[in-house]
Formats: sequence, C-alpha cells, structure tokens
Amino acid sequence: MTIKVLAISGSLRAKSTNRGMLRYAQANTPEGMKIHLADLLDVPFYNADLAEKPPAVVTLLQEFAEADALLLGCPEYNYSLAPALKNALDWASREPDNHLLRGKAVAIMGSAGGMGSSRAQYHLRQVCVYLDLHPLNKPEVFANAFSGAFDHDGNLKDVKIQDNIKQQLNALAQWYNKLRA
Amino acid sequence: MTIKVLAISGSLRAKSTNRGMLRYAQANTPEGMKIHLADLLDVPFYNADLAEKPPAVVTLLQEFAEADALLLGCPEYNYSLAPALKNALDWASREPDNHLLRGKAVAIMGSAGGMGSSRAQYHLRQVCVYLDLHPLNKPEVFANAFSGAFDHDGNLKDVKIQDNIKQQLNALAQWYNKLRA
Amino acid sequence: MTIKVLAISGSLRAKSTNRGMLRYAQANTPEGMKIHLADLLDVPFYNADLAEKPPAVVTLLQEFAEADALLLGCPEYNYSLAPALKNALDWASREPDNHLLRGKAVAIMGSAGGMGSSRAQYHLRQVCVYLDLHPLNKPEVFANAFSGAFDHDGNLKDVKIQDNIKQQLNALAQWYNKLRA
Amino acid sequence: MTIKVLAISGSLRAKSTNRGMLRYAQANTPEGMKIHLADLLDVPFYNADLAEKPPAVVTLLQEFAEADALLLGCPEYNYSLAPALKNALDWASREPDNHLLRGKAVAIMGSAGGMGSSRAQYHLRQVCVYLDLHPLNKPEVFANAFSGAFDHDGNLKDVKIQDNIKQQLNALAQWYNKLRA
Repeated sequence: MTIKVLAISGSLRAKSTNRGMLRYAQANTPEGMKIHLADLLDVPFYNADLAEKPPAVVTLLQEFAEADALLLGCPEYNYSLAPALKNALDWASREPDNHLLRGKAVAIMGSAGGMGSSRAQYHLRQVCVYLDLHPLNKPEVFANAFSGAFDHDGNLKDVKIQDNIKQQLNALAQWYNKLRA
Repeated sequence: MTIKVLAISGSLRAKSTNRGMLRYAQANTPEGMKIHLADLLDVPFYNADLAEKPPAVVTLLQEFAEADALLLGCPEYNYSLAPALKNALDWASREPDNHLLRGKAVAIMGSAGGMGSSRAQYHLRQVCVYLDLHPLNKPEVFANAFSGAFDHDGNLKDVKIQDNIKQQLNALAQWYNKLRA
Repeated sequence: MTIKVLAISGSLRAKSTNRGMLRYAQANTPEGMKIHLADLLDVPFYNADLAEKPPAVVTLLQEFAEADALLLGCPEYNYSLAPALKNALDWASREPDNHLLRGKAVAIMGSAGGMGSSRAQYHLRQVCVYLDLHPLNKPEVFANAFSGAFDHDGNLKDVKIQDNIKQQLNALAQWYNKLRA
Repeated sequence: MTIKVLAISGSLRAKSTNRGMLRYAQANTPEGMKIHLADLLDVPFYNADLAEKPPAVVTLLQEFAEADALLLGCPEYNYSLAPALKNALDWASREPDNHLLRGKAVAIMGSAGGMGSSRAQYHLRQVCVYLDLHPLNKPEVFANAFSGAFDHDGNLKDVKIQDNIKQQLNALAQWYNKLRA
C-alpha cells in the first residue's frame, strides 16, 4: 500500500527554494510513499461570499481528499506564515466536519533567512491544533535560503539538508502508520 | 493636524464582523483623527514573479504611504491570521527600506469565536516586530462574533465593545503623538 | 493494564483552581487510568551549577519515569507559562536522551482569566515540540477562574467543564493507546 | 540625567553565556546609561500563599522600582522561557497597579543553540503585552552559545555580537527618551 502525500508550497514563485525542497522530497521518497505537488497559482483567497468554488479550489480539495498525509513547504514572510499556504488550509478546513484534514499526519519543512522559517513553522503548528492535524515533532527541517544551499533555480544542493529531508520522510511514514493503527 | 489612519479588514466578506468593527471605529474617531478603509478584494497574493504591481496593489501601497498609523481588523482563521490581512502587510513590506511601515503606530482589534481572535492577534504582534510597527499594548479589543454583539449585516451593536473601541482610538492618538515626538 | 498519568499543576497555591481541575480529573478517571499528582513545592529552579539533585527533584524525576502519560494543569501568568510547571519539564528534559518525556502522550487543561489560560497553553504546546511530547489536539480544556466555576477552595463545580475534563481523559486514553501501538 | 537599566539573566548558572552578554552590556553602556545586574539566586517561585515577601524578592522589587528601563537576558529552555526570568517578571507584576513595569522600555538579548533563543524571545514579547512593557523592535540580539562566541567563563568574545549589543543599547536610550516624552 502506498502512502499518498500532498505537498504544498507557501511560495508561489517558480524558483522558490521552498518548492525546491518539495521537489527534492518528491524525487527521494522512501519506498511506499508518493508525493503530489499542489498548484496554488489560481486558488483565490477564501471568501464566504463566493457563490461557488473556483475550479482551482475544487481541484485542491480533491487533492486533500485523496491525501493520506501532508507535506507543508513553509516559507516565512515577516515572521509568520505565507498567506498562500495558510489560505490552502483555510479552504480545506471549510468542508463538512473537517473531514479533509482531521487526524492526518503532517511533515513541515521550510526555507527562509537565518532561522530557516522557524518562526513561521511554530505558527503553522498552532494552526494544526485547530485543524486536528498531527505534525511530526522531529526532525524539524530548517533551510537557510541564502547560504548557498540552493542553486539559482531553487534546487536543493546542500547534502545535509537533503539527508534531513530523507529522514523526515521516513519519520512521516512511521508516524502515518502509527496514527492509522 | 489630523492623524490619518488606514484601516484594513482581514475578512473579505461584505457582512464581516471585523469590517463592522472598523466601520464603527470610522464613525467614532476622536477629534483630530480620520480613518480610511482599504479594499483588499482585488489585491492578489504577493508573488515575486509578477512583472508589475496590479492596480489594486498600487492603490493599497499609496494608502499605506499616506497613513500616519494603522488600524488592523484581525479575524482568526484556524487559530492564526487571515491570509488577506497578512498579504496586505507583506505587499507593503516589500517597498524599499520598509518605508511604508517602519515606525508607525498600530491598533489591533478583532472578532472571532469565543476568544475574540486573540490567538491571531498575538501572531500579528510577532509580525509587527519584523515590520518595525509599534502596536498598542492596551486596550486590546476582542469581540465574540457569535454572542449577539453584531447584527446580521455585521454592524457592531454591543455597547461595551463600542466603548472599548473608542478607548482604543484615544490610546492610538496618544501613542502616535508619543512616537512622533 | 493501567495507564499511569502524572498530573502537574503549574500553580503552587493550595487553593489553586488549576489544582482543583487536576483533583477533579483524578477522582473521575476512566476505567484503566490512574492519576498521580506531583508536588512541586520543594522543587527548586533548574541550575546547572547544582552539585546534586535535591530530594524533591529526585522524587519528581522518578514520577516522570513511572508515568505513561502526562496531564498538565497550565495556569496563565502574564500571557505565558507558570514558571513552576515549565521548570518541572525543564528538570525532566535534562535526563539522558530525554527518556523521561520522549514520545509520551499529554493532555493540557488550565484555568485563568477570561481566555482560560489559552495563551499559556499554546506556549506549552511549543515546548512539547522540542520535548517530543504528543499533546492531544482535542478537546482543549479552558476554564474561567473567575466565573463561579470553582468554589473558594478551588474545587471545580461547573458541570460543563467537568464533562469537558472527562471527555479529555477518555481522549487521552485513546491517544495513549494509539501512540503505544 | 542617567538612564538606570535593570538587567536580569534568566540563567542562574555562574558561567552562563546570557550573564556574559549582560556583563558585556554593563561594561559598554553608552554615555548617560548605567546598568545594574539583578541576582535571582534566592528569589523563590511566586506563590500567593507566601505570608510575606522573602528578602531577595524585596530587593528585586526595589531594583525594579528604581529602574527606568529593563535589559532582559533571555535564554531558551525547551523552546520557551527560562523559569527564573519569567518568575522575576511575575513577582514584579503583582505590585499594585503594575507600577513597577507599566510603560517601561525593554531591550531583549539572548544566547542559546542555533537560533539564539529566538523562540523564547517571542514568548517574552507576548508577556510584555500584558505587562505593558515596550520592547525594542530592533536590533534583535541572538547569540549562538555553542559557536565559539563565548569563552569558558561565559564572557562574550564575538566582535559582531558585541557591536550588536552596543547598537541595541543606543537604540534603548533613544527608545527610552521617546517613550518618556
């Protein structure tokens, strides 16, 4: 059986280092895990006044429904979350009985300035409490976006962070299996 | 001399209780203060790949430039910030030398479930550290959106919260004058 | 098999409402759970210069060692944690390989002013990340200390909060069993 | 006129790097500022049941009363505050009308693992909201305790962090003067 993981990058930029981390994860999953990357470019802000869900939202919610677990690429903008990532979770949270999120295992990684998006990641963990998501405690993955860890296209080159990500994916698989039991 | 305050609601909904609080503030400013409400409906997510700023962003940045102080209507979505509010600040933060925000006085109010958006407001205060904004410590303004404090159009009816807002606006005027000195 | 739970109150006061909540929990455990209340009165501040552990610390660490899960009575002092509760966790965290805490299930409850210690509880949850503790997401338990929910001796009288605690203890038992699997 | 600053280290250890930072600050104040270091070794946990204040608490409260501003040396224990620092503030907060703290300027610095106590510092900033303290936004001072920045006695040797501290003290003097106006 395959663990289906939905990966979401909070940065919309094509050459984002956070997307680069998720691509690395996607190409280096442990056996029995498959990662799908969401595309948030056409997902609008949640607004209760919208008469119906835009197509990009319908697609995103379908991806949440199919996911066994989440991998959140968490940038840090001004010491907190990237709005696009938070908004994706907000959309998912509006479905009946929170059934798209409730109880799912989550891994969080992020790239930013010197503290590697840690400030944003702790805000994200508080969000997970309400959403009844279960983020991994360890390993945390923090990448410094400006230290040469990435090439100009946002590809992850740093071997230590690559290893860190591979360990996190293994931990996610174990955590998923424990929570499912 | 008039203190020009830019008010921003994190909720895009027309009948939002957070907008209702800002409308109440706008209609009840102390002498010497004027509040302008921003419109975020057409402000897209910040994305470094955008070749040029959309017109709604140009307008918003102009409003930030003209503001002496900020009044932030802070909803709470899933225990953290509303993406639209965070995104407005993110856009403003990208201007050279952070000159649209640096050193400005801020008042924060919010409406949400039982804890009146407090969880989101503390995340917002952390954002203010990086942006070098100076939020008022007191009074904090927390409104319970579901307690009858608002009518069906989101108008604020609760006298106690109305008083609380008027006190906050007075405190904002004093705080602004102190910081300007 | 019995789930052994160590309960710790962050308030040292004899008539503390947080202790009152823990006493109620202790007297109302689900079948198969037993709660022991720690006594922090003689536990000093952690200080790496101390040549040896004081007796009250030795006792506390033994209680952590025997505990399958933790129940943390979390007051809120000045918008953050009670030092005595944080200090108890700090002492436990200094043991080799974090073996006293690592992987254990945790339930958090608290009594305070209007927001029922929520601000402190989210700080406590961030502590749990580093300690590799697994706090329950739901139900959260927030009690208003000044609303008549407690008698003058700190005994919990409010039926709704009593039910909330019983639900939390049931959820803790299920969470413990899932994590142990 | 001299700005009297009370410096408090959250670490009780004699060779603490946080104390080392405060000593460096004390020896390198800008003209017109004087720093006094508090001694928390005999300050017990706040406990409302204590019949009278222990002598070390009386001394500490007197030091708060005489201080124009605060300099907080903020370690990070398990992703949050050192209990001894929080406890010192909790004691001060219990005086009538919060007159020992209300409105005072604060500078925060800290030494810890890789992120230089940043996680604890943001918790401390939330505490300042309730206490009506006014922490400087910038510069923040984060020191890595394990990077060779300190000698074995906890003395600060790193020139960049030394400069950072001197800039922070200058900023504190300006901030104090602005708030006093």
